[in-house]
Amino acid sequence: MKHILLAALVLSTLFTTGCKEQTSKEADSSQLQAIFPKGEPGPADHFTGRAWNVGLVNDDTVYNTVIGNVYFEPGARSNWHTHPAGQILIITDGVGYYQEKGQPRRILRKGDVVKCPPNVMHWHGASPDTGMQQMYILPKTEKGIVIWSQKVTDEEYNNSN
Amino acid sequence: MKHILLAALVLSTLFTTGCKEQTSKEADSSQLQAIFPKGEPGPADHFTGRAWNVGLVNDDTVYNTVIGNVYFEPGARSNWHTHPAGQILIITDGVGYYQEKGQPRRILRKGDVVKCPPNVMHWHGASPDTGMQQMYILPKTEKGIVIWSQKVTDEEYNNSN
Repeated sequence: MKHILLAALVLSTLFTTGCKEQTSKEADSSQLQAIFPKGEPGPADHFTGRAWNVGLVNDDTVYNTVIGNVYFEPGARSNWHTHPAGQILIITDGVGYYQEKGQPRRILRKGDVVKCPPNVMHWHGASPDTGMQQMYILPKTEKGIVIWSQKVTDEEYNNSN
Repeated sequence: MKHILLAALVLSTLFTTGCKEQTSKEADSSQLQAIFPKGEPGPADHFTGRAWNVGLVNDDTVYNTVIGNVYFEPGARSNWHTHPAGQILIITDGVGYYQEKGQPRRILRKGDVVKCPPNVMHWHGASPDTGMQQMYILPKTEKGIVIWSQKVTDEEYNNSN
């Protein structure tokens, strides 16, 4: 009887551990849902930390729309920049930030949609602990795509006001 | 010793079954990844079966872009239709179909991007057994949004050529 109880204890521990491992793996911030290939690292001139970009729709004169996906690793963010015709962001997983110059930093989560107006200085990126999967849509590309500006300092990045 | 083996057998079966159940639930076609709220049912005049639409970006004169998400339940599809300025589809989960008039039906999966040119008659929807989560982007809305046409018959829907 002692042996049966011992075997039961060992095996039920195995059972519990096996399923717990699966759960904690799913909750790991590095395990965000990826819909698209990771793509290529964004240039260090325009990003702090590691941001991966994949193009989904290239510019042409039929749609005049550029679409892509950026995966921001935790802590990564774009420089300050503007878009001559604005930009729409759609968050598909993770947690991140978006800030327009002179406005409070906003927290972004899965399902959030941001409309960034034309020529408004802004930046976006991941939160410090969790990455962010973010699609971007650039309309009216005949007006231009992006004008890059200076880096987002650690002070700016960490200022929640 | 017999008892130990029996207990081991029973518990290892429990362990295996427990984890298998989790896997099969994840693979269930009704368990597609939903990024956005399900929204409202598409009108029966324009869809066969159940398709749920949620608007993400409404039309305006700044972006001239409409964005939304449709969840097609298995077997559901749009009518034939055209877009005066074209449409871009982005599949975020599931399996579905896209067909332009006179062209073979294409199979769509997570991560696929479709550019449907202006004024090209087409339809899209889910496969018979698995639903489809599909974002749509309508550019240049000053030219118009959609012109609806007749239903996709079962024969058209099931024709893989």
